[in-house]
Amino acid sequence: MKPNYQFKKPAFFIVLLSTLSIVKGQEKGDPKLTEVWEPEPKVVTPGVNNDPPSDAIVLFDGSSLKDWKGKDGKAPWVLEGGAMTVKPQTGAIQTKRAFGDVQLHIEWRTPAKIEGEGQGRGNSGIFLQGLYEVQVLDSYENRTYANGQAGSIYKQHIPLANACRPPGEWQTYDIIYQAPLFKSDGSLGRPARVTVIHNGVLIQNSVELEGPSLYIGRPKYKAHAEKLPLVLQDHNNPVSYRNIWIREL
Amino acid sequence: MKPNYQFKKPAFFIVLLSTLSIVKGQEKGDPKLTEVWEPEPKVVTPGVNNDPPSDAIVLFDGSSLKDWKGKDGKAPWVLEGGAMTVKPQTGAIQTKRAFGDVQLHIEWRTPAKIEGEGQGRGNSGIFLQGLYEVQVLDSYENRTYANGQAGSIYKQHIPLANACRPPGEWQTYDIIYQAPLFKSDGSLGRPARVTVIHNGVLIQNSVELEGPSLYIGRPKYKAHAEKLPLVLQDHNNPVSYRNIWIREL
Amino acid sequence: MKPNYQFKKPAFFIVLLSTLSIVKGQEKGDPKLTEVWEPEPKVVTPGVNNDPPSDAIVLFDGSSLKDWKGKDGKAPWVLEGGAMTVKPQTGAIQTKRAFGDVQLHIEWRTPAKIEGEGQGRGNSGIFLQGLYEVQVLDSYENRTYANGQAGSIYKQHIPLANACRPPGEWQTYDIIYQAPLFKSDGSLGRPARVTVIHNGVLIQNSVELEGPSLYIGRPKYKAHAEKLPLVLQDHNNPVSYRNIWIREL
Amino acid sequence: MKPNYQFKKPAFFIVLLSTLSIVKGQEKGDPKLTEVWEPEPKVVTPGVNNDPPSDAIVLFDGSSLKDWKGKDGKAPWVLEGGAMTVKPQTGAIQTKRAFGDVQLHIEWRTPAKIEGEGQGRGNSGIFLQGLYEVQVLDSYENRTYANGQAGSIYKQHIPLANACRPPGEWQTYDIIYQAPLFKSDGSLGRPARVTVIHNGVLIQNSVELEGPSLYIGRPKYKAHAEKLPLVLQDHNNPVSYRNIWIREL
Repeated sequence: MKPNYQFKKPAFFIVLLSTLSIVKGQEKGDPKLTEVWEPEPKVVTPGVNNDPPSDAIVLFDGSSLKDWKGKDGKAPWVLEGGAMTVKPQTGAIQTKRAFGDVQLHIEWRTPAKIEGEGQGRGNSGIFLQGLYEVQVLDSYENRTYANGQAGSIYKQHIPLANACRPPGEWQTYDIIYQAPLFKSDGSLGRPARVTVIHNGVLIQNSVELEGPSLYIGRPKYKAHAEKLPLVLQDHNNPVSYRNIWIREL
Repeated sequence: MKPNYQFKKPAFFIVLLSTLSIVKGQEKGDPKLTEVWEPEPKVVTPGVNNDPPSDAIVLFDGSSLKDWKGKDGKAPWVLEGGAMTVKPQTGAIQTKRAFGDVQLHIEWRTPAKIEGEGQGRGNSGIFLQGLYEVQVLDSYENRTYANGQAGSIYKQHIPLANACRPPGEWQTYDIIYQAPLFKSDGSLGRPARVTVIHNGVLIQNSVELEGPSLYIGRPKYKAHAEKLPLVLQDHNNPVSYRNIWIREL
Repeated sequence: MKPNYQFKKPAFFIVLLSTLSIVKGQEKGDPKLTEVWEPEPKVVTPGVNNDPPSDAIVLFDGSSLKDWKGKDGKAPWVLEGGAMTVKPQTGAIQTKRAFGDVQLHIEWRTPAKIEGEGQGRGNSGIFLQGLYEVQVLDSYENRTYANGQAGSIYKQHIPLANACRPPGEWQTYDIIYQAPLFKSDGSLGRPARVTVIHNGVLIQNSVELEGPSLYIGRPKYKAHAEKLPLVLQDHNNPVSYRNIWIREL
Repeated sequence: MKPNYQFKKPAFFIVLLSTLSIVKGQEKGDPKLTEVWEPEPKVVTPGVNNDPPSDAIVLFDGSSLKDWKGKDGKAPWVLEGGAMTVKPQTGAIQTKRAFGDVQLHIEWRTPAKIEGEGQGRGNSGIFLQGLYEVQVLDSYENRTYANGQAGSIYKQHIPLANACRPPGEWQTYDIIYQAPLFKSDGSLGRPARVTVIHNGVLIQNSVELEGPSLYIGRPKYKAHAEKLPLVLQDHNNPVSYRNIWIREL
């Protein structure tokens, strides 16, 4: 295959297209040598109308908080209208199950009635493994530090775009998370990585984390289990969540 | 911050949750030191009801093939019902614009009437930069080699799942693509990488490509321009496409 | 800092040099903010005249084979002249200790009397963790397949150069090895990586391994312990080794 | 190949060793399928007694400063005893040639007569591409901030060990450097990476740089040419250099 990439020549176009016919057609050798039949990927039935795929673990479908717990046992947040809403001062909630590498779908909504500003408006957070935060904030026409706005990896990575919908509207995060791995001596084997798609817009592109999210100081990894619960933060604002599902990778 | 990861102890839960209040509250030092205000991410208005985000380049909205061309100039595929459909034997089509790193949304449909089997059923392909193929195939109850089924990076990476919808139904690919970079001596500077979400299911997780997709033989990089057109393949089956948009990263 | 990279302008040189005085001198802010005092690196006394550093684990200093074992217990190779030499048909030997990530120094010599050709001349191998082979071969004016010559990662990575000394002369490999890590479900967490410096010449530059070295077929990872013994291969040729030391990373 | 990694069982050892005979012996299939003959690596004659390899560009062999220049043209440092020594207040010197990815060997010596302390004792620096500093300092029993001691990537990466020889003795750095690449829009395509072996001891293991070395503030990449000169710093201390050679990768 000898593509010719001199784009300004009229010849290029034909070359590129003819290349394609070569790709699946006319070279020498046995094409079967590069076929791989095993393993056969498992069948996953995708969701219809925003429903979870068939292999997802549904963490919240609007009907109960049974898969979550709070600091005194039962998750104390408000269940209403198919959503769960932070009950300020009751503390964070976390999943009963623990997770490592995952694909996570989660929907969130900041209060329609605007109150506060900067970090004080519609603040909550999704802590992957309870340690690595994807910021939830009403960043619609509400400036704060870039590495602390909605979709930031808190104080580590500025989002590529501000894709917020207005307060009061439901928003989605589709997250691909690679958990860190530690060697048995406690040193870091591989760092955590996060990709975030916010309302369909890529805002974090496989960024590498420096360690757990910190409000003060520079992050630093500390060895932990391979799987840990997902945590949603109570930051004193009545932020709501719905349609939360996770797929183990 | 001293998390306690002895999960089986009842103490753990409280420690993890109290850690969170520490994260945004009680450590020593000046939290402003780790605030980063610039650059401020650009505002992107996300789409509603599957529409493209505000900064997307719309490559096909169902109304015309004006952004595409074929081997003899005008793109010869069939425009009908808001979709464009492969016209067998007319050849691949490609975008008039060239692209490097992108987020790509594309929808595709294989014929409702099942014909052929294996690689012969509903075959087409999305060639990123005209060289790196994400396979399009009717893989719904239609076995073929795993590294050649729908969502494979053709003959390089088996998809993590078979998330196909039945023939005749529209399906989505959301693709995050990192183009390869070459040094001025023609050697590879960084490889291509692809993430694919198929109907909402992650099927390729930032996989590294070995080179252009080949039907025969082992792939090998060859230096090319930083930006190249997107190509859709004519593999003799009347596969349809719609709602194609791309965001430059 | 505003470097000016228009090299052909005479102004460039002064700009680059003056940049350097800026680097350590004249910017605004407190330089102490980016000083990190902990952890203080451990002191390692480097070797003199090719001796091991103070923190190295000496695996062979020429005096005994006590740190190695063979298939029936005691390592059956020949100890003579400060070197150990493969005793054909007695099998591979391996270290009693197991290792993960390491810096390895090893010296080897193929027979001065040339016998055989291709893979048949002075063949042995250094199997990191008993699985991942850095090829040892007399590749001095002795052609074989490039991914099987001295310094290749056997059948995976061609060396960047053929830096062999003539048969009968001692040669060095300085190897930096990152062991693979596996998740508890047995899937790959991070791949193995190898850097090799052969007689002072970089021949493998942090290449990623696809799996264990195989004579036939494509390699594929299979979960194993974090630490495994180092193995030296008996390939029926009386290849010698000396001055072997390893540092755990 | 079915390795058995239950190390504590006596059976393990035999399994591992017998695995090795399998590796090059008894599997099914054609071993020729995984032989790769091209490209044949170039022959490089390694150096004897610390001499450069045959393909190295010798930047300083002790006889002249002809390959270097200073801010007013000719490199103003002192040439004596086969070494070149910083002439304080004359400024940095840089190579006439520019380099991208390289293997660099360089030897350095801090003054035998101890003067100053911390950053004030035997301070100089090797600026890869004039921007990315591997620190040169007399760190033998001379504490300073860890990310500023000998072998640090200045203010970015603490060395893994303090492998300094005493002042007045010659020391070596063997450096593997991957230059950053930038896309045509000026954004970062891949970051710089550095490996450093200090007196035979690995002290930087393919660390990723955040940007150019800065005395004050956080580093940030700024697009620059693919190749740039190597710079040696004048930090007012009479540090000496010798036997400098570089291989383009």
